[in-house]
Amino acid sequence: MHITKEQIEEAQERIKPFVHRTPVLTSTIINEISDAAIFFKCENFQKIGAFKIRGAMNAVLSLPNDKLQKGIATHSSGNHAQAIAYAARHAGTRSFIVMPDNSSRVKVDAVKGYGANITFCEPNQQARESTLHQIVDTTGAELIHPYNDYSVITGQATSAKELIEEIPNLDCIIAPVGGGGLMSGTSLSAHYFSPSTIVYAGEPEGAADAVLSIKSDKIETAPYINTIADGLLTKLGDKTFPIIMKLVKDVYTVSDEEIITAMKLVYERMKIVIEPSAAVPLAAVLKQKEIFQGKRVGIIFSGGNVDLAKAAEWFK
Amino acid sequence: MHITKEQIEEAQERIKPFVHRTPVLTSTIINEISDAAIFFKCENFQKIGAFKIRGAMNAVLSLPNDKLQKGIATHSSGNHAQAIAYAARHAGTRSFIVMPDNSSRVKVDAVKGYGANITFCEPNQQARESTLHQIVDTTGAELIHPYNDYSVITGQATSAKELIEEIPNLDCIIAPVGGGGLMSGTSLSAHYFSPSTIVYAGEPEGAADAVLSIKSDKIETAPYINTIADGLLTKLGDKTFPIIMKLVKDVYTVSDEEIITAMKLVYERMKIVIEPSAAVPLAAVLKQKEIFQGKRVGIIFSGGNVDLAKAAEWFK
Repeated sequence: MHITKEQIEEAQERIKPFVHRTPVLTSTIINEISDAAIFFKCENFQKIGAFKIRGAMNAVLSLPNDKLQKGIATHSSGNHAQAIAYAARHAGTRSFIVMPDNSSRVKVDAVKGYGANITFCEPNQQARESTLHQIVDTTGAELIHPYNDYSVITGQATSAKELIEEIPNLDCIIAPVGGGGLMSGTSLSAHYFSPSTIVYAGEPEGAADAVLSIKSDKIETAPYINTIADGLLTKLGDKTFPIIMKLVKDVYTVSDEEIITAMKLVYERMKIVIEPSAAVPLAAVLKQKEIFQGKRVGIIFSGGNVDLAKAAEWFK
Repeated sequence: MHITKEQIEEAQERIKPFVHRTPVLTSTIINEISDAAIFFKCENFQKIGAFKIRGAMNAVLSLPNDKLQKGIATHSSGNHAQAIAYAARHAGTRSFIVMPDNSSRVKVDAVKGYGANITFCEPNQQARESTLHQIVDTTGAELIHPYNDYSVITGQATSAKELIEEIPNLDCIIAPVGGGGLMSGTSLSAHYFSPSTIVYAGEPEGAADAVLSIKSDKIETAPYINTIADGLLTKLGDKTFPIIMKLVKDVYTVSDEEIITAMKLVYERMKIVIEPSAAVPLAAVLKQKEIFQGKRVGIIFSGGNVDLAKAAEWFK
């Protein structure tokens, strides 16, 4: 499985000084509606507002000192950029982030706030990669992939590990799946620390690659991309897919309408802010009642970085 | 002052089994922006989503048994209706709530969910009061005023008391002021349990009666009513005003734009949902920098019952 129980335990100790141990919340009304006992692991309250800091922090702190000193590089317009910038600063090194020149001001400011060196490029994959390679050639900085990296996966596993420590005897855990970093890490922690807990994935209908990949036993591309869950658009990687294939029992897809209903429930009843990607597992639990009814269910609320102007449109 | 230290302590014990001890949260980034150390008492996570349950619960549980058994009556379209319905149910009695027939479905359903008997009336003050009096005549139910009632004020005082217990040495506490129930209760708790803590009020410019009332030393009406802070539209009562006059040092007014900026900061940085009225004190702290700079500031986040479709408009 490439990642051992001990490596997850070590990662938890390694990143502990730099990340929050996020709270586990419950909601009487959501338990009534779902007819289940749900425990929400709130990574929306995590540093940088998402679980991504766990993987980035673990990857950066796992580098040998000579590599670390040259700095960290990545391209990203989202949470991974902030995670790398934050992790590099707290590990005492530099970060080089390539961002598309149409990135939102809020995100650019956040990355800048963590002291990253930002290089803007045209907003396409080719420009992002070629710009990144130039920077790596010049600086010798280390590339860290947002999910297809064993150190990153090991770091993401620590969220489910904390949940399992706090809430014993979970019948199942469900997390959102995009590139599969959080999903594979979650399934590894269940495997090692609570082997009787079944692991499910939630996926948007508008980025439904994981459900196809599990069916055909090879990495598939989504038939189409159209969803508000903007953290889950990428397909699985060759490191995340085999873990998910082995340890995740099933993938449930949900529509954007179902995602919005779940988000609204969380805002209105729990009074907390989550991003659309984070609402996907709850939407799946509400949809697949016969699976989750009467069960003790762990849900990873993956993040809370939401564009409020867009949220406005959804809640109309 | 009509309310003693012991009465607040008794109220705290009395309502304890029925209300949450809400958490006190902090935000590094909001502390940086405000250049203060702010401690947020999160009544948005309270039962029924607002501090109002504290006062209603204390008032209902303070009734002698013969009165209690006849039930509780009130007219309200907002948080007070839910608070009375919830308090009556948990005290083992009936509630009779008069609601305007244009009340939102969500609010009606919430009140119904607590088992209240709802009577609808035309949406004006005269119809509300005459309908209520008919019900009281028929049922003998006890009226409980939303704020101008010593038992209610005493119950609302328990929020600031908990904050003071948890965070010692606050330089000041600021709460929103509408009818003055929360504000007078907050100032009483500071007076008795942390006498060196200065108490301020935050008020919307579009419902600026308290600032005038304190200036002229008598209860004034707001020059105009136009604000998104819909929990703060009423004027002070003859029981709340004298306490506020004596114990609150100053009232700071804020515009709706300033309220929205503060709300947005809380949603984006703290990842929690608050209603506009709850954002008023933070807006005041951000506006009056010279007053709060370098201080340890307690803020009462009064509630989180927000219409998300409206919030959508504000955040555009």
